[in-house]
Amino acid sequence: MLKGAIAIQTDNLHDIEGVLEQIEQVAHFGQDKSGITRLAFTSADHQARDYIIKLMQHNGLTVQIDAIGNIIGRFQPAGIEPAAPPVATGSHLDTVPSGGKYDGVLGIVCGLAAINRLKERSGIKHPLEVIVFAAEESSRFNMPTIGSKAMAGLVTAATLKGIKDQDGIALAEELAASGFSTNQMSTVPRCQNSIKGFVELHIEQGQGLEQERSSIGIVDKVAAPTRLKIMVVGTAGHSGAAPIEERQDALVSAAMIILAVRNIAAEYEYQGAVATVTILKTYPGTINVISGQVEMWVDIRGTEHESIIEILQEIKDAVSSIADDYNTPIAIDVLSSEKPIILDDTINQIMEEVCCKLNQTSVRLDSRVGHDAMNIAHIAPAALLLIPCKDGISHNAYEDVAPEDIAAGIAVLTETLYELASS
Amino acid sequence: MLKGAIAIQTDNLHDIEGVLEQIEQVAHFGQDKSGITRLAFTSADHQARDYIIKLMQHNGLTVQIDAIGNIIGRFQPAGIEPAAPPVATGSHLDTVPSGGKYDGVLGIVCGLAAINRLKERSGIKHPLEVIVFAAEESSRFNMPTIGSKAMAGLVTAATLKGIKDQDGIALAEELAASGFSTNQMSTVPRCQNSIKGFVELHIEQGQGLEQERSSIGIVDKVAAPTRLKIMVVGTAGHSGAAPIEERQDALVSAAMIILAVRNIAAEYEYQGAVATVTILKTYPGTINVISGQVEMWVDIRGTEHESIIEILQEIKDAVSSIADDYNTPIAIDVLSSEKPIILDDTINQIMEEVCCKLNQTSVRLDSRVGHDAMNIAHIAPAALLLIPCKDGISHNAYEDVAPEDIAAGIAVLTETLYELASS
Repeated sequence: MLKGAIAIQTDNLHDIEGVLEQIEQVAHFGQDKSGITRLAFTSADHQARDYIIKLMQHNGLTVQIDAIGNIIGRFQPAGIEPAAPPVATGSHLDTVPSGGKYDGVLGIVCGLAAINRLKERSGIKHPLEVIVFAAEESSRFNMPTIGSKAMAGLVTAATLKGIKDQDGIALAEELAASGFSTNQMSTVPRCQNSIKGFVELHIEQGQGLEQERSSIGIVDKVAAPTRLKIMVVGTAGHSGAAPIEERQDALVSAAMIILAVRNIAAEYEYQGAVATVTILKTYPGTINVISGQVEMWVDIRGTEHESIIEILQEIKDAVSSIADDYNTPIAIDVLSSEKPIILDDTINQIMEEVCCKLNQTSVRLDSRVGHDAMNIAHIAPAALLLIPCKDGISHNAYEDVAPEDIAAGIAVLTETLYELASS
Repeated sequence: MLKGAIAIQTDNLHDIEGVLEQIEQVAHFGQDKSGITRLAFTSADHQARDYIIKLMQHNGLTVQIDAIGNIIGRFQPAGIEPAAPPVATGSHLDTVPSGGKYDGVLGIVCGLAAINRLKERSGIKHPLEVIVFAAEESSRFNMPTIGSKAMAGLVTAATLKGIKDQDGIALAEELAASGFSTNQMSTVPRCQNSIKGFVELHIEQGQGLEQERSSIGIVDKVAAPTRLKIMVVGTAGHSGAAPIEERQDALVSAAMIILAVRNIAAEYEYQGAVATVTILKTYPGTINVISGQVEMWVDIRGTEHESIIEILQEIKDAVSSIADDYNTPIAIDVLSSEKPIILDDTINQIMEEVCCKLNQTSVRLDSRVGHDAMNIAHIAPAALLLIPCKDGISHNAYEDVAPEDIAAGIAVLTETLYELASS
């Protein structure tokens, strides 16, 4: 299947230094001593977006921005019909609070490097695109992958208009402040098969590749998150006075739930599922008052829908028995529940063959982490190419990636995009 | 010892309705559906303070406000030397977030009612004072009983100037904004024995009186709080990716600490000591990131200093073993540690005799809750008179007190102040 006509240089590192420099440049936006905090549509995010827009333009790409803020940089090869479905790559620029410098950014700068390499290659029959998806992290607006969801038509304009961040600021307000028109929201979704193929390059955010000693991961399935909000109701009271046995301390029940969720997660992990209590808030949250209420958020991930349903049921059972034992009513609210996504096996096979040809080890795996590719999979053949990050550490200032793995990722991405664009 | 000359009317309820009405009036300041939130020096607190100042003036008291914001309403009986040491009563107006309507307020309006009754009595040889102590609750500035500490000279002007609230607003700023001069701070402390005797009336905030079926509690000792800040350091990471056994989830360690503290508290409760985790904050506190850091605050109370030391050591031991087991370093910071206070037994004996004469049941007990009286005890004979609150519920919107218990409290307070002021 692979075209042998073009010499592939696996040791071609002439643009790697540029990519590393671009990663450092973007890392400045939102950086402090705790890491990089570049929440969607904050000024740090806008600085990073502006930097990438200029970079795209400098590299001869035409830039369009849709009404949800997705940035689409396009290379139109000479003599090719502009209406031909493009071959696309891309990822995101926003981060979690105190995040790292590779998550998201890597897929954009490597995508740009790949397109730059392909510009000089013959046989390209489709336009090429690098897409910066808006608001991928759920950290600010509580909903993950907003930009790619909108592009894939998975979320209505009405829902998008209703989204608010944790301070009550509406996404629509932020978009309007950035000059986007929420009235144009209906123009964001792209049609079925209007993209010929999509490949996202991303760091693994796990240790699967390190353990397999493989520099390329090819993802079969992406776990989709199920999110719960658990409200524990106790009785606020003076922390010096109320006898221990007579208390309904919401924080004690919450502690039991944290440990129950951890034990359930450990039990289901072999099935590729996991659950974590990530946010906890105490009310009134004052030094001399027993917690009258605790709000906690649970993130459940799994690549098998059945495992997620079972975990959810086990959490509900555990919570119900804790509520009874401690006389603290507990409500569970399922905020979102998405099904795992199967990615495109044809592109995955191309990637495997590319790796083979490039003498790169590759491994098939599932991703418990959600990515924009899983949404684009609803409207186009989509794939996810992972490269290792050190010790699996991500969403953390210590996120780190080896330059040789970046080089391998760009090489595999370039040839995969070439295979898709030249056929 | 009691003077029998004056007829004491235990059924004298002519001013009870006024007192209940004043409690309702003050409850409006800072009230919402979750309870009353009247943190020190917020606008709700100022409204309550202004209401009480007007009420004092309306009742013929002269009002002075010291540089920390303590309000001193004084009745100067005709023909008595103004320099004679006053007999004083009082409590506070500030509340915890979502608190009740009796905690603090009761001691002020009942104190006013008592002084009003005494104005018509003969034999008074000392000025009478009702004191509103500023910032009693630790909810805003993290330090409890700031006003009475300052009046008793237990805290330096430099320390007071350094106090900030949880939003970083300095107490000194708030005082300046309220027209108080922080340069006058050195004039706040009152001299040793400049007060002849002090009696604070307060709700019990526990169920001791209900269990003893007694309407009056006479406090021998007041537990002083020891406060800890515990920082758990984990490793932030993607909550979908990191395998459970390899995580250093700071929130899981925090949950173990919450349960350990609860078990230690239950073990020491028979010694009159208790410990509670009241505040917990997760960092970064975002739905898809494992907690990299958790901050938790522990409130320890006890009436025996030895028990507090033992509880503290047990918590340190438990925390150290959790840190090892889960590979999450944990730091404990002892923010404050105060010794239990012994109140004045002479006044307590007077109160017992008054109760006997008024046909009120009384009981001696210890208080695990700190009050302004414990600070005033450093400069004057001081006592604490407790009345029951329903089911022991306090620091909660459901705080409730029976009018007949308020009536009994005012009667006992009035006669105790009379005994102190007429001898």
